[in-house]
Amino acid sequence: MPCPFCNPSIEECIFLESESFLAIYNIAPVLPGHSLIIPRDHITSFIGLNQQQRTEFLDTTTQAVRVLLKAFHTDAFDLSVQEKPEAGQTIEHLHLHIVPRLKNDMPNPGDWYPVIHTSDQMIMDDKNRNRLPDDDLRRIVEKLRNVAADPDLRE
Amino acid sequence: MPCPFCNPSIEECIFLESESFLAIYNIAPVLPGHSLIIPRDHITSFIGLNQQQRTEFLDTTTQAVRVLLKAFHTDAFDLSVQEKPEAGQTIEHLHLHIVPRLKNDMPNPGDWYPVIHTSDQMIMDDKNRNRLPDDDLRRIVEKLRNVAADPDLRE
Repeated sequence: MPCPFCNPSIEECIFLESESFLAIYNIAPVLPGHSLIIPRDHITSFIGLNQQQRTEFLDTTTQAVRVLLKAFHTDAFDLSVQEKPEAGQTIEHLHLHIVPRLKNDMPNPGDWYPVIHTSDQMIMDDKNRNRLPDDDLRRIVEKLRNVAADPDLRE
Repeated sequence: MPCPFCNPSIEECIFLESESFLAIYNIAPVLPGHSLIIPRDHITSFIGLNQQQRTEFLDTTTQAVRVLLKAFHTDAFDLSVQEKPEAGQTIEHLHLHIVPRLKNDMPNPGDWYPVIHTSDQMIMDDKNRNRLPDDDLRRIVEKLRNVAADPDLRE
């Protein structure tokens, strides 16, 4: 199975990028705003990153969180990484989940987590069943790119 | 309610430290090895960290993951942060969860996540009901400190 994050079609999901990392909108979001930070290259592991890569990874994550909080009108969010299938990693290309949160968006705050496995499976579905409609994706990514271009949002 | 991570008794849980961050064993682990990275100071928010703090935060996290993977004989783990109560943050002192994972340690890999809310509540229970017995905690932290002292584990 080819890696979905190495597919050139990922371009349409990118709303922020640094030298080695991309912030992409999830084509199968578990909640509005659900995005991913991935390396451009096919790196599978977080623990294998060197210090320079880690710094860039977290800087890109922080900037993407700022964009998402502004775009989705909140200051609450979850971050998570799964490493190896035993930990729930479905797609073998490092990806950090960012999920902006709103009060009572789910019955319990932790309910989003077990669903990311299904989300990852949808991303891997090469027939694209259940993915976000193209128009919705384009509209959201366009909005996030505009927010990301706001110089007030930079450190 | 006083912050449990600002209580001097946290000292007994520390297995690794950097200038501004501590790696502590969770006194109410959801799985064996469940640990936390916290700032020494009472900082509530991930998004408020500056770049230098972020770099140190992730460096400490990476080193703690290495220690935990070696001590718990695996290469699989989960990382997560909740920011604000809407996202499931129970203790208002920044903390990143690290959970080493083993094959079939839970029916589904994502099952640990909804339980961290209960774990955080146990940490906040000042009567220490349900916390890990002191002898077990001492034994585990001692082991982790020994692993952390291994120079081969450094970058």
